[in-house]
Parts: sequence; structure tokens; C-alpha cells
Amino acid sequence: MRPATFHVESSCGAARAGTLSLPHGSIPTPAFMPVGTRGTVRGVTPAELREIGTTIVLANTYHLWVRPGHEVVRTLGGLHTFMAWDGPILTDSGGYQVFSMSDRSVVSEKGVRIRSPEDGEWRVLTPETSIEVQEALGVDIAMAFDECLEHPATRDRAARSTERTTRWLHRCQAARAFPERTAMFGIVQGGLYEDLRRAHAQELVEMDLDGYAIGGLSVGESREELVAYASLSASCLPDDKVRYLMGVGQPVDIVDAVLAGVDLFDCVLPSRAGRHGQAYTTQGRVNLKNARFATDPEPLDADCDCLACRTVSRAYLRHLVRCGEILGKRLVSLHNLALYQRLMRDLRAALLAGDPVALAALRTRAELASGRAPE
Amino acid sequence: MRPATFHVESSCGAARAGTLSLPHGSIPTPAFMPVGTRGTVRGVTPAELREIGTTIVLANTYHLWVRPGHEVVRTLGGLHTFMAWDGPILTDSGGYQVFSMSDRSVVSEKGVRIRSPEDGEWRVLTPETSIEVQEALGVDIAMAFDECLEHPATRDRAARSTERTTRWLHRCQAARAFPERTAMFGIVQGGLYEDLRRAHAQELVEMDLDGYAIGGLSVGESREELVAYASLSASCLPDDKVRYLMGVGQPVDIVDAVLAGVDLFDCVLPSRAGRHGQAYTTQGRVNLKNARFATDPEPLDADCDCLACRTVSRAYLRHLVRCGEILGKRLVSLHNLALYQRLMRDLRAALLAGDPVALAALRTRAELASGRAPE
Repeated sequence: MRPATFHVESSCGAARAGTLSLPHGSIPTPAFMPVGTRGTVRGVTPAELREIGTTIVLANTYHLWVRPGHEVVRTLGGLHTFMAWDGPILTDSGGYQVFSMSDRSVVSEKGVRIRSPEDGEWRVLTPETSIEVQEALGVDIAMAFDECLEHPATRDRAARSTERTTRWLHRCQAARAFPERTAMFGIVQGGLYEDLRRAHAQELVEMDLDGYAIGGLSVGESREELVAYASLSASCLPDDKVRYLMGVGQPVDIVDAVLAGVDLFDCVLPSRAGRHGQAYTTQGRVNLKNARFATDPEPLDADCDCLACRTVSRAYLRHLVRCGEILGKRLVSLHNLALYQRLMRDLRAALLAGDPVALAALRTRAELASGRAPE
Repeated sequence: MRPATFHVESSCGAARAGTLSLPHGSIPTPAFMPVGTRGTVRGVTPAELREIGTTIVLANTYHLWVRPGHEVVRTLGGLHTFMAWDGPILTDSGGYQVFSMSDRSVVSEKGVRIRSPEDGEWRVLTPETSIEVQEALGVDIAMAFDECLEHPATRDRAARSTERTTRWLHRCQAARAFPERTAMFGIVQGGLYEDLRRAHAQELVEMDLDGYAIGGLSVGESREELVAYASLSASCLPDDKVRYLMGVGQPVDIVDAVLAGVDLFDCVLPSRAGRHGQAYTTQGRVNLKNARFATDPEPLDADCDCLACRTVSRAYLRHLVRCGEILGKRLVSLHNLALYQRLMRDLRAALLAGDPVALAALRTRAELASGRAPE
């Protein structure tokens, strides 16, 4: 029995609503994973995540490997117990952290040497280590350790990098000690080269993995490119496996990717923006630092029933943000995550109902929420 | 009808259990007020404050005057609506802030010129302004604007300062525009001079104020002096008015002051210590940064049922504290406040039961929690 199984319940064009069954529970898709880098979605408790409809969270292999260490987490009963979240958890592989710390890392065929910003120590993260760490954390889904390609990249560079990602994927597959307990997803790379993406997706599909991710996007390409290459990648993947678009994105990007057949998402935007006083609302992006909210008695978003919108005004949130108060970071993050979760629920309902009009309306709403004028 | 009335329900020596009735509700005493300087107890929501047994919170006149401004808060319906706390609120007068920013303030008979650290602007806080601000905030209890005496102070300096505090108190009293809506408490000063304290308390009592505070302590004197002068001051105050010891303190200081006849307390310690990863527990002070908690699976305090102790381990809290995660500050603050509130509830129960053995046991527990070996 695989630790991750997926079935489509309803589809509408390329888009689908489904269920992803995992050791710690089943999640309805499309689904959005809040980012809990260090085993905590910043400032938010598991109960609050549940209340806004979160079904699965993402944590970070690299960061948990450095602090507190995967052996510590294993000793304490695994990441679920450690962070008191009993639902499914997916961990990224650490590949992206290496990529984002390129000034302090050295990549070789073996893996990556990284100098940690936390303690200044050099460590070596390999495909084998990444899988070992993720299995020690006891997560539901481990991501294969891939090489994240910079943008822009030449075709030659993209081809060689994708080949390395495949070699590393085979090493990850071979390193798995608990394949019945922790699923492993491979990651489609290939940069912005259609033939490379197609070929890489094909290689992965032939390995019959537990699920497939689309990587190497949201790294600086245009929105049109993001949607085009996510769509292309999704179209190369089998119907009966879940598809996860990594690190994306704005609400409208998520809607477009769902329409292209993607099921699973993660992004730091809602929580990170929230910590900086930037809110997503059904009426557009709101910068709470703006003086025009100084005496605004209205809730942040009249269409939202999150803790912030139920209890306090924009003026109060602005005051908290302006004073750097923790409660401001907490409430605005929670609100943004609630908006994302509501979007996922509504997308799913529209897909289950087979209602293209509702889907189009959701896309318009997501454009507004993303701070863009509807097209 | 006065906005604040107090009656004693039970007493045990000088100590008493009572009820303080205020416009936004009645509070059982002894009571502890969490400090919400800027209209938020850092990182904690009103619902969480309620859950741990909080009945009244303290906010800061000076800080709310500077940001967002009392007129803004008044426009938005007052501080209760603004911060979404519907229970009683007490504000300090700003006197202590002036005192703690003596390098950027100039005191004269008129009041205090202060250069705000927030915006670098000079402002003048007078007794009249302080009352105006507090009434605009719409709080249940305003504190008179007093001069906080430095420690140590000569007898002459203490005498002159106390006289000024009395003159300012009369100006505060005269400035009240809504005496039926916002109570005003006077503050007993007099430094560490017994005769000055007695005389000042007598002057205040003759004014028949809504309640009385004991000020000028917890400013660097010894613990023995703190308890002795709090006790002396309390003994000079009438039985039928509430007595509030400002800015105190460690759990054991609170127990000793309750035994001396004090009813009401505030202190930044539980919330501030919590933000720095320092926990109060029934087994003593715990510095969560300490490496010995790295793999400790136990709850922070086995005798506590707060959110942190119900859900996560010391090892997880240590991880959060070490990473500077907001959730760590939030959970440890909440735990510390829960311990303080439980102490107040237990003190009250022992007083209502007239049980000196239980009171003695609580004092021992409070000594432990304060990180002191029981005497």
C-alpha cells in the first residue's frame, strides 16, 4: 500500500477536485499548504490553522535539520508530535534553500555544501541525507532533493541541471528506508524549455512515483511564463497522481494553475505578507501601514469571518502593525491564510459542481485579491 | 453612583478577598492585570486572556496618547472597542513613563515635557492632559498623574515630590469631566520614609477617592523594603476602597502584598519574561534557551493547563525560543500569565475559605515560581 493515493472526484476541463489520502488523514483538493518553515506557521497555532480550514502544512527539511536536528525530532516522536499538528505534513527537500543561499553554498554531483547562516557551520546536504532527514521527521510526504535552476538559464545549463535532478532522484528513491510510511514526490524541472520539461516529466512518470511536483517556477519568470510552464508540466503528468506546484503563489496564480490541472500548492506569501502588515482581501491588497486606515472602523475584509475580521477594525490592525506588535503579525497572517483557504474551498466546490461560471467568478475574485485589475 | 465600588467578602489577617465593581464588569479580588501597553497584551488575544481567567487589563496612557492618539481611539468607540476587550480596563497615568525616560524628559510644576522615542517630537503631559486622555479612552479606572520618585531619594526630595504629587492630584480631580464613567485612583507616594507615606496616605484618604494605589515601589529597593512599605501604605488605607500596588511583581511579592492587604496588581514580568523565553513554573523559573531542554518531552509545567502546557513539549518551546519564532513568545507569555492568574484564583479561594494553611502553601509555591528557595 502506498502512503499517498489520489483519486479525482470531479473535473472541469483540465481542472480537477480530488482526494489525497495520506497516513495522517485525507485532504480534499485543490489544497493550499501554509508554510511552517521551522515547524511553526509563524505566530499561528495548529488549532487556528484547523479553524480556517487548513488540512496539510509544509515544513522545511533544511531548517529542521540545522535546528533542532532531525534526530531530536525523531526522539520526540516525530514532527507531528513536536509541532502538535496531527494532520498531514509535507517537507520540501532542502533543495530550494540551497538555491536561495547560493552565495554560501557549493553544488557538486555528491550534493551541496552549505554554510548555515544560523551557526556558520559547513554541512553537506545530499539526496541521501535529505531523505534520511525527512523520514526521521516522520512526515507524510518527502520531496526528492533536486537542483533548483536559476532564472534565466541557458538551454545547456537547464539540460545538465535536469539530468542531475534525475540522477539525484534515483539516489533519493534508493535511500528510502520507510517507503510505506513516508511518500516521496519527484519534481519536474527543465527551466523554461518546453522539450526539457516534457522529457523530464516523462522520465519521472516512468518511475511511477507517489506524486509529482512542478518545480523551478516562481523564480523570476513572468506570470504568463509561470502559468504556461505549470500548465505544460501538469499536462504531462498522469491523472491518477496528485500534482503539486511548488512555491506558487498569488491567489490568481493558484486559480490559473488549478484550471491547468494542479492540485496542491504552498507559498510563503500569505504568512510573510501578513507579518509585514500586507493583507489580501476580497477587495484587493491592503497595506495596513497606510495612513488612510488610521480611523477606519471597518473590518479588514467584510467578507471574511477570521478572528481578525470578526473582532477588530482596520484602524486597530494598523495601530498594531505600526507599533510592530506581535498581535498584528499574528492576526494579519491568519487573515491572509484564511482567505487562501476559503479560495481553495470555493474552487473545490465549483469543481465538484462542474460550474465554469463559478470558476470564472473565483478567478475574478482572485485577481482582485492579488491586487490586479480584472482582465 | 461611583464608577468603582469595592466590598470585602472575606478577610484573613490584613488580607482580603473582595469584589471591585466597575462599568465594564465586576472583578473578584485579589486580581492581577496583564499589561497591554499599546492596547494589546503582546501576542495574546482577548479571548486567550479570558480563557486563563483574566478579568481586567492595564493599558498605557502615554503610549496610546502618542500612538494612535486618544482622539482616534475615542472616534473608534473607545479603548474597549478598539482592542476588542469588553472587560474592565485601567490605564496608568503616564507618570511612570516619564520617570523611566528621565533622560528625555523635563519635569516642572506644570507637568512634563517629553521627547517621544517614537517620533522624536516634544510633547507636554500635564495632570489635566493625562485625565483628558484617559477619559477619552473611556477606561474604567484612570490613575492620577503623579511624580514617580527616583530611588534612592533624600527625605527632602521625597517630601517635595510627594507634595507635588498631591497638588497634581487636586488638578487631576478638577480636570475630570466624566467622573461617573471613569473612576480615578490616587497614588500614595513618600519614598522609603514612613512618616511621609503615612501623611500622604492620610491626605489621599481625606479626598475620598474611588480607590487608592501604592506607588514608588519596585524601583530598585530591596524585597524587604518593598514588602514593608507596601504593607505600611496598605495599612493607612480604608477597608472599603480597593488597594492597588503598582508594578509589582514576582509571584512571591504578590502573595506578600496580598497578605498585607493589597487587592490589585499589575506587572510586565510574566509577559516580558515570556517574550524572552523565561518561564514561571510551579517548579521554579525556567530559561527555555537552556540546552538541557533540547530533548525534554515534558510540558513546561505539569500543573498547568494552558495552551502551551496542553499541547507542546519543553523541547518544542525551546526550539521556538531559540529560533526567535513568534509562536514561542506567544505561548510562553500566555503560560506565564496563566500561572499568575491561577495564583490569584487560589489566593482568593484560600481567603474565602479563611484557610491560613492554604495561604502559607501558596506562598511557598509562589517562592518556588519566583525562582527562590522557600525560606
